[in-house]
This record gives sequence, structure tokens and C-alpha cells, in this order.
Amino acid sequence: MKQSKSIMNIETVALDEENDAILIIDQTKLPGKTLVISLKTQEEIWNAIYLLQVRGAPAIGVTAAFGIYLAAKEIAENKAIHTYEEFHNAFLKAKDYLDSARPTAVNLSWALNRMTLRCFQNTEKPIAQILQNLHDEAVAIKEEDTWVCKTIGEYGLTLLKPGDGLLTHCNAGQLATSKYGTATAPMYLGHERGYQFKIFADETRPLLQGARLTAYELQESGLDVTLICDNMSATVMRNGWINAVFVGCDRVAANGDTANKIGTSVVATVAKRYDIPVYICAPTSTIDMSTPTGMDIHIEERPAEEVTEMWYKERMAPIGIKVFNPAFDITDNDLIAGIITEYGIARAPYTESLKVVFEKKARGEK
Amino acid sequence: MKQSKSIMNIETVALDEENDAILIIDQTKLPGKTLVISLKTQEEIWNAIYLLQVRGAPAIGVTAAFGIYLAAKEIAENKAIHTYEEFHNAFLKAKDYLDSARPTAVNLSWALNRMTLRCFQNTEKPIAQILQNLHDEAVAIKEEDTWVCKTIGEYGLTLLKPGDGLLTHCNAGQLATSKYGTATAPMYLGHERGYQFKIFADETRPLLQGARLTAYELQESGLDVTLICDNMSATVMRNGWINAVFVGCDRVAANGDTANKIGTSVVATVAKRYDIPVYICAPTSTIDMSTPTGMDIHIEERPAEEVTEMWYKERMAPIGIKVFNPAFDITDNDLIAGIITEYGIARAPYTESLKVVFEKKARGEK
Repeated sequence: MKQSKSIMNIETVALDEENDAILIIDQTKLPGKTLVISLKTQEEIWNAIYLLQVRGAPAIGVTAAFGIYLAAKEIAENKAIHTYEEFHNAFLKAKDYLDSARPTAVNLSWALNRMTLRCFQNTEKPIAQILQNLHDEAVAIKEEDTWVCKTIGEYGLTLLKPGDGLLTHCNAGQLATSKYGTATAPMYLGHERGYQFKIFADETRPLLQGARLTAYELQESGLDVTLICDNMSATVMRNGWINAVFVGCDRVAANGDTANKIGTSVVATVAKRYDIPVYICAPTSTIDMSTPTGMDIHIEERPAEEVTEMWYKERMAPIGIKVFNPAFDITDNDLIAGIITEYGIARAPYTESLKVVFEKKARGEK
Repeated sequence: MKQSKSIMNIETVALDEENDAILIIDQTKLPGKTLVISLKTQEEIWNAIYLLQVRGAPAIGVTAAFGIYLAAKEIAENKAIHTYEEFHNAFLKAKDYLDSARPTAVNLSWALNRMTLRCFQNTEKPIAQILQNLHDEAVAIKEEDTWVCKTIGEYGLTLLKPGDGLLTHCNAGQLATSKYGTATAPMYLGHERGYQFKIFADETRPLLQGARLTAYELQESGLDVTLICDNMSATVMRNGWINAVFVGCDRVAANGDTANKIGTSVVATVAKRYDIPVYICAPTSTIDMSTPTGMDIHIEERPAEEVTEMWYKERMAPIGIKVFNPAFDITDNDLIAGIITEYGIARAPYTESLKVVFEKKARGEK
């Protein structure tokens, strides 16, 4: 079994029991620097979520669970807190505070609500027992996340064969979860088993999660990954380099319509043209059976500045990353409704109509 | 007739007869600054082409034609040149020099060859007459380019109705030609006639010609233009905002297969899904009947650094440009080959298969 390098051995989110802190990889420093930071205070935890130092729905959920556990511990140690009622009120206040860090992140409130239920489960128990329960619940949330990802990876792997070319969009990777990621799980598991996948990562404009995070974590883990711009998907598919597309999702509707990072449907449309299967890697927590179709999913619009101004002086992809960077691509004629020339508009079949254009030109007609 | 603003009144490339110079808009300064620079020496002209201060096949051709005319004038004024042979040799040397500025730009050698033919046409004529011929030929090249673009625009306009939503990719605009552009010609002509198009410009990674040039020139000309990332095309089409796609081309094969800026085939694939016609705006000079299909067109690969490092601290799109920036999109279920969950892989129809996934979950199966 091949041993993966560095990042697979660093946990995205870990509880530092000795120091009552949370250890996270600061994702705002990637790919330039792999920095593990320690979050001790509630403010630090809130900021880490708010500032996207930790991101990805599952990773945020785990961070929040550890965070509210640490809050409870702090409250229990507070000499001013005497009654269960005071403890519970302080707990709920801490919960609301963390919950406000990213209001639209579903896993944030999901994890906090689950921790709250556990807290209020057996109010007759001693505080020490409640704290132990909260600790165990937070650890369980993390372990379940790891299990979910690994299991998705195993199922995904049954669809693949050694040497396959895989395309992914955005970052549904280890950095978004406790371990393995979702879309990347089959890649990591296959890598451990010597599958030698050739992976292509869309850079994913405007925020470049593909260039900054996916390309980074796959490369750090020793996988063969090539970064492309989002608009190069048709070229790599046309070249026969892609056997399957694996992506994560933000919400899956009951009919299977899937909301995911901008550009996912573009990749899927192109993949369909090249008969390449598109697999959505979806923990059941992201499948919303109460949403009938994609039409019922509201799409967030983000600041214009992400497109116009978020250009940094620093390098925006890991050093040494492979890049496939063709300057042009081929649009097949069946995709073209007309070719407009100064001698009129040619329509399919172009072998005929372009001849007509040149006959017109030879006759000097205008 | 509505009068367009600024840039439509500045020529992309102009001959400054009084000062024996070429005036160009320095495209490396856009969109931040509209700077017209004067090129007097052959070195300045060579550098302007090499450094992409002037770009776009037709605009390069016009610049080269004016450039070699100015070179001929300089040679004729050189006291050391006495014979026709010396004049011709110096002319050919100047031609080879300019031709080396961008070896792969077809219009560059095309224009220079045309000027050379004209130079050698009537060797018995006085130098003054040869210079006049060269002047007239260069002016003709520019006027023809303007006519080609305007005519393409008129044909394009017959396909459109007032209020249409149009999408374009890269810059096949006025900045790439003498006037009107190719893909933008129907837009400019329609604008002059009050068509009130709603135009969407792909930013066009990696070099952002859409964000830097197309968005700029359309906005400067008073058109309604919205900048999107390349991966947002499916969203604007799904929203029903696009009635037609207009793009330029670098080479069209005999069967209509079209080579154009990376991403064009992605836009076309997506447009097909939404039954939106894709029009290639192609001067006959870019249609290569000796190339049977797109398979015969070699695709240039460019430096990795364009993808990984070309991130500037400056603003990369014009101030005030409208931006549509959704964070996610919807991938319809018919585009998805499977949804991989920790309870197995759901296949279409998802309304059935996802229920099975949840039944499995309820039974606690793994």
C-alpha cells in the first residue's frame, strides 16, 4: 500500500484535547503555505468559519461541533454559573453565536442543533457527564463524516479502473471534510491501491478553489493532477483523457437535480456530449427530499468584485503543478448554427455552403 | 441614429500621415487606461505587435501594412540607397523583420506578402509612385477590413431582433480589427439602430480578453454588457437570457469545424443544449478550404504561468461593468450518470432510486 504524503496525514479539523483547542489547516494560506492554527476562544472559532480559514460543509460542521463542546467546557468552568438553567442559557447563547458565523451554511446549524439536542438530553446528569456526552457527540460527528466520505469513495471506486482519467470541479476534497473528501474519495482510495489515475482539476473561477485547494491537496498527496481553466473541459474530453467526472454537491433535489459550484452544469453538459459519465458525490445530508427539483433551489449571487478584482500578486496554484494550457479549441460543425461571412451566412452542411460562399466571392458578388 | 461614445471614435490602428507614424490604442493598458500611442520606428512597430499592444489578426495585418509602407518611405529617403535593387533588398529585410514579431499570426505575413507583391509590381515606376502604391495598398487593406466587418455585422443583424440577449467569448471586437470587430459587428450596428441588446461577455480565461477588452469596448461604446466567468454560460442560458451566441474564429476548416479561443466549444456545447444558435463570424481570410476538418488543425499550447501566475494586483475589468455572479448552478438529473451516497449509487430515475437510498438508510443497512 502506497503511503500518501503530508496533507493526508494532517487532519483538516482536529480536537486538541490537551489544550482545549481546535487545530485546523488555515485554508486562506493555501496553496502557498500549509499552516495549522490553533483556535482556543469562541471568537477565534467564529472568525475561522467566517473568514473561510475552515470551509466545506462537513468541515464546518465538525468545527462547530468541537467549538460548542469547548464553549460548554468553558461555561462549566465559569464560577459565575451555578444552575443547570444558567448553564443551558449560556450554552444556547454560545450556540447562536457560532451559528451566526455563516448563516447559509446548512452543516453549521445542523451540527450545532445536534449538539444542542445532546446537551439537553439528560438534564438530571452531572455537568461532567453532559460534557462527556458533548465530547462524544462531536467526535461522533467527525467520525461519521470520515466514514461517509470513505464509503462514498469505495462506491466510487467500483466505477473506475486503474489508469482512468478523472475530472473534478471546485473542491469537494479532504480540505472540505474530515478526511478523503467526497469527489476526491475515490481518487485517494484508488491512489492507496495503486490505480494511477490521471486527474484534471478545473481551476473554478471566480474563487479558484480548484486551483488553490484541489490541485494543492491532490498534488501534496502524491496524485497525478493537472490544472486546467474551466473552459478547457471540452478539450481534455475530446482528447480522450477523461473517463469519468466526479463532483461534490451543495444540495441534491428529490429528482436528482443537483446544485453545486458554478460551472458544474457546464462540465456535465460537455461530458454528456463526449459520453463521459458524471457522478455526483453526495452525503445523504446534502440530499434534500423536500426540494422536488432544481427549480426549487435558490441560487446565491455573490459580489461582483470576486470576478473583477480578486487578482492577487501571489502565485495562485501550487509550485510544480502540471498545467495543460491550449490556446484554442475546436467547435465541431454540428454545434454551429451558421458561419457569417461577408458573402452571406453559411449553414450546415458546410462542405456545401462554404463552397457557395467562395463561388460568390469568385463572382465578386456582395 | 444613436451616436456611440469614445472608443468607436478612436481607430484601433490609424496612419498618421503628417508624422509618418502609426497610431494605435495600447491594448496592454486596457481596461484601466485608453492610451493612444504613436509608433514611428520599425522597432516600435515590431515591439507593439510582439508585446500585444496591438492584437487581433485583422488589426495586426493593418499595422504591418502601414509599418512596411513607413519602412519603404524611410528606405527611399535613405541617401545610401541608390538602385532599385538596393531599395528592394532593404524592403525585403524590413518585411522579414516585421514578420518575425509574431510568427504564428497568419494575417501578419498575409498583409506583408500582399504589400511585397504591390512593391514589386511595376519595378520600372519611379520610387515615389511605388511609395504611393504601397500607401494605397495599406489603406485598402484597412478599408477592406472595415468593409468585411461591417458586412458581417449586417448579415448578423438579420438574425436578431431588438432586445435580444447575446453571448460572446474572447474578443472578436473592434479592438481586434479596424472597426466594428467581427462577433461584435452585429452588436455595434444594432446599437446604432436602437436594438438595445443585452450582451454577456465571457471573461475568457486565462488571458481575460473578454473581461479586459470585450467588456471594455462594449461598455465604452454605450452597449449594455454584463461580464461573466466562463463557467457561468449554462446559467445565463438556462435563465433564458441568451438568444444567440456570436464568436469570432482563428481558422475555419472546409467542413465548418472552427478553431477559436479556448472555451468556444464549451459555450457551443452548452448553447446546443438550450437550443441557442451559435454563429461563427468569419472573414473569408480565416476560412481555410485546404484544411478538411478540425482534426487537421494544430492547437497551440501556451505557458503554464498564464494559468498559475498571471494574477495582477490591479483591477482586471472596467469600472462600473455589470457582473452576474451566481455561486452555484443546477445540473439537471438527465446529465448525471449516478449519485454516489454512503448507501450506494443512485441512478436515474432519481425520484425512485433516491427513495431506495433513504429506505436503506432507515433500515440501517450499510
